[in-house]
Amino acid sequence: MLKLYYTPGTCALASHIALEEAGASYSTERVDFKTNQQNSSQYLEINPKGRVPSLVTDKGVLTETPAMLAYIAQTFPKAKLAPSDDAFAFAQIQSFNSYLCSTVHVNHAHKGRGYRWASEESSFADMKRMIPKTVGASFALIESKMLKGPWVMGDTYTICDPYLFTLTLWLDGDGVDVSTLPRVMDHCKRMEGRPAVKKVLAEQRA
Amino acid sequence: MLKLYYTPGTCALASHIALEEAGASYSTERVDFKTNQQNSSQYLEINPKGRVPSLVTDKGVLTETPAMLAYIAQTFPKAKLAPSDDAFAFAQIQSFNSYLCSTVHVNHAHKGRGYRWASEESSFADMKRMIPKTVGASFALIESKMLKGPWVMGDTYTICDPYLFTLTLWLDGDGVDVSTLPRVMDHCKRMEGRPAVKKVLAEQRA
Repeated sequence: MLKLYYTPGTCALASHIALEEAGASYSTERVDFKTNQQNSSQYLEINPKGRVPSLVTDKGVLTETPAMLAYIAQTFPKAKLAPSDDAFAFAQIQSFNSYLCSTVHVNHAHKGRGYRWASEESSFADMKRMIPKTVGASFALIESKMLKGPWVMGDTYTICDPYLFTLTLWLDGDGVDVSTLPRVMDHCKRMEGRPAVKKVLAEQRA
Repeated sequence: MLKLYYTPGTCALASHIALEEAGASYSTERVDFKTNQQNSSQYLEINPKGRVPSLVTDKGVLTETPAMLAYIAQTFPKAKLAPSDDAFAFAQIQSFNSYLCSTVHVNHAHKGRGYRWASEESSFADMKRMIPKTVGASFALIESKMLKGPWVMGDTYTICDPYLFTLTLWLDGDGVDVSTLPRVMDHCKRMEGRPAVKKVLAEQRA
C-alpha cells in the first residue's frame, strides 16, 4: 500500500488530492516541521533531501511532486488523470507541473526560506518585498497563457489541477491581488467543490 | 520536424543531446541573450516565458527541460532513453530531473540571475557568496545518494544523463571543488566520450 508523508500547508497537498482522486489505497503520516522532524535521522532515511512530500511504494520511495503526480496517474489509469497514449499531451502536463515546481513554488519559497540562497537579514527582507511581484508575475502568465479552462488542460481534469490549486492557496499570504486572476480563482473555487478535495482538506486541517 | 531553440551555456544542452541520442530529425536555432532575443516579440510568441529551451513540434511548442526530455524519450522509443512500461522506473527518472530543475538549477541561477528574486546589489552579492555551498550541497547529495553509476539510473543510459552532464559543466564556474565529487566527474568524462555529446558540443561551441 502507498504511504504519503506530508505536512499541512506544503505542496504535498497536490499528491494527497491526486491519491484521493485516483481512488488509491493509501495511508498518510504527518511530518512536523515545528520539531524539525523532516531532518530527523528517521525521516532522512526515507527522504535524504529532508523535505516533504515523500511517497513510499512497494518498489521504493518517490520524491518531487511532478514525478509523484505522474506516478499516481500512471498507476491508476482508470482515473484518467493523465493521457497514457499521447506523448505530446502528457508532455504538456509535465511542462505545466515543471513550471509550478521550478518557477512558481521557487518564487514563493523566497518569502520564508531565503536562507536557502542567502545569509543576511537584509537579503531576506529584500526577497520578501519582491514576493507579490514575482509570484504575481508567474500567476499572471498562468492566468493569461497557460490555464485553458475550466481545468488546466481544458475540459479534462488532470494531475495539473490539484497542483495549481495547492499553489493558488498561497496567493493571499504572498500578498498577490487575486482580483487580477479571475480565471485562476474560478479554478480554485471549482476545485474546492470536488469531494476528494473536501475530504483531503478536512484531514489536513484537522 | 522538431526544432530546438537554444542558447549555448544553458540547460538547453540537455535536450539537444537527447535529440541527438534519440536519432531524431531536428533543426536548431540559437537565441541570442546578448541582444535579449529571448524577450523579443517574435520569440515570446514561441515561448511566452522568455526562456530557453523551446521545442517546436507538429502539435505545438513544449517548454521546461524535464517535460521535453520525457517527450523525446517517449517519441523515439527505440532509443530506450526512458522505460515505457514501468511507472515506478519512469517516475524515478522524472524525480531526478525534477530535482535538477527545481533545486540544482535554481541554486545555480542565484549566481547571475539574483534579480529574479531580489533587487539590492547587497542581496546579489550575498547570493553569489552562497553559490559554492548551495550548488555544492545539491551535488553532494547527487554524488552520495542519487547517482547510481555508471549512469544516473544504473546500467542504462537515460534522459537523466544529458541533464546531469549539463549542470555538471557549470560546477567550475560556480566555485565548487569538483575533487569532492569523483563519481559525478567520472560520469561527466563518460558523457564527453559519447559521439552524440561530442557532436552537439561542437555545434554549440562553434
